[in-house]
Amino acid sequence: MFLALGKRVAVSAARARAVSAVRVTKMALTQISSAKCFEGYQKVYEHDSLELKCKMRFGIYLPPKAERVKCPVLYWLSGLTCTEQNFITKAGSQQAAAEHGIIIVAPDTSPRGCNIQGEDDSWDFGTGAGFYVNATEDPWKTNYKMYTYITEESLITSGQSVSALAPICNPVQCPWGQKAFTGYLGSDKSKWEAYDATCLVKTYSGPLLDILIDQGKDDQFLAAGQLLPDSFITACTDKKIPVVFRLQEGYDHGYYFIETFITDHIKHHAKYLNA
Amino acid sequence: MFLALGKRVAVSAARARAVSAVRVTKMALTQISSAKCFEGYQKVYEHDSLELKCKMRFGIYLPPKAERVKCPVLYWLSGLTCTEQNFITKAGSQQAAAEHGIIIVAPDTSPRGCNIQGEDDSWDFGTGAGFYVNATEDPWKTNYKMYTYITEESLITSGQSVSALAPICNPVQCPWGQKAFTGYLGSDKSKWEAYDATCLVKTYSGPLLDILIDQGKDDQFLAAGQLLPDSFITACTDKKIPVVFRLQEGYDHGYYFIETFITDHIKHHAKYLNA
Repeated sequence: MFLALGKRVAVSAARARAVSAVRVTKMALTQISSAKCFEGYQKVYEHDSLELKCKMRFGIYLPPKAERVKCPVLYWLSGLTCTEQNFITKAGSQQAAAEHGIIIVAPDTSPRGCNIQGEDDSWDFGTGAGFYVNATEDPWKTNYKMYTYITEESLITSGQSVSALAPICNPVQCPWGQKAFTGYLGSDKSKWEAYDATCLVKTYSGPLLDILIDQGKDDQFLAAGQLLPDSFITACTDKKIPVVFRLQEGYDHGYYFIETFITDHIKHHAKYLNA
Repeated sequence: MFLALGKRVAVSAARARAVSAVRVTKMALTQISSAKCFEGYQKVYEHDSLELKCKMRFGIYLPPKAERVKCPVLYWLSGLTCTEQNFITKAGSQQAAAEHGIIIVAPDTSPRGCNIQGEDDSWDFGTGAGFYVNATEDPWKTNYKMYTYITEESLITSGQSVSALAPICNPVQCPWGQKAFTGYLGSDKSKWEAYDATCLVKTYSGPLLDILIDQGKDDQFLAAGQLLPDSFITACTDKKIPVVFRLQEGYDHGYYFIETFITDHIKHHAKYLNA
């Protein structure tokens, strides 16, 4: 499973043959908001998560085409500090999604309101920083099952294409990852590798991947050694997995960077999703 | 002066021949943030406003073309509750501005931090709700000089084209306008008309206007009688002033509506600004 790539603002995609009103209804969703946008609808739903044992929200953009036929789904996994709101309000993704007939699901990034001691103590661990892992350590293991939430409780059926914007490529080797994985997974580093894209790609034997990564050259977290794209590229090169890595001169880590390149990423996925 | 049109999310435009690094420097600006976006830069500046007697912030998008030549400027006047941030983070305007070589200035909507009694008591009056008027009543008249701030202290040199998204077309006749104008301007209603687009257009004798208005049909504030576009259209028709008014089926008052149509508005202004 390749969703572990790009803890920050990663994009992964899946053909969702089964997405339908019936399937959605089964999740017992409560509509929080709905606004017309580029002739489709940007909605936010809330549901009780069985895996996370709390109420969760996600954003979903339904392109106008979805009123007539089933459409493929792109999953946007936001990064540190984000809720389901950041991407849907700031990325300007809806125009390209409408054009290519793609549904975009933007989940939240951690369980919410679980009242776990220390969950709000830092911005890079706990609330807003689930790192898409299944925690095995107390007090996190009861609720912090983000890996299962994203891969099983949501509607992802198969990974097809992958892209990322300024991802944490090798969390095992960076301060953010070491802090989070120690807290959620304990001190046995061999257990960390299942959630590290660079480690995963070294043993990858699934379908052919087509990976697109954009990275701002002036991203402060690149300079701080938190993102480590070189490690990932080296691992991909060794495995002969093609990666298009674009180091974008002058861009930082913020949403103006995302907004600038999101259309390229949606086009990248549309090639496969609409094939 | 036609800037009074569209208290909410109005767009007006001006040829800014004098916009240059020198001119900007004279305003004693402090750069708060700068992020590359569509090969240009989205910046936020702070400055001491002489008119408003407080520090003010505004957003400015500089398209890549602005590095080589002088570019025209479009002024985006946000509506109730907004700061300089709403438009620049949510509207997705930068792509079209980059394409057409247009600078977009997004000022704040009221004085800030003036410690006027009652300034934060309601969301539709005081902080975040300056209504672009020059207040004449205590305790507002010392700081609330938004009309002069926008038309003189900023760099607007001449009005050329105008457009608006879900504007308050006839504030003299709606609850928002009546509350604000009573508070800022007093009970003499004849003084209100200078800030009401519908009243202004009845006596307009300036250059030919080309007005574009988009209005969501499901906008809750349209149904509540706060926006009154029919009054404005009737006044324009009587004066033979052309207005393209598009009632957009299913759209509400939020930024997903703005995001959907902002490119059309930038194109509308680009016709004149780049002529």
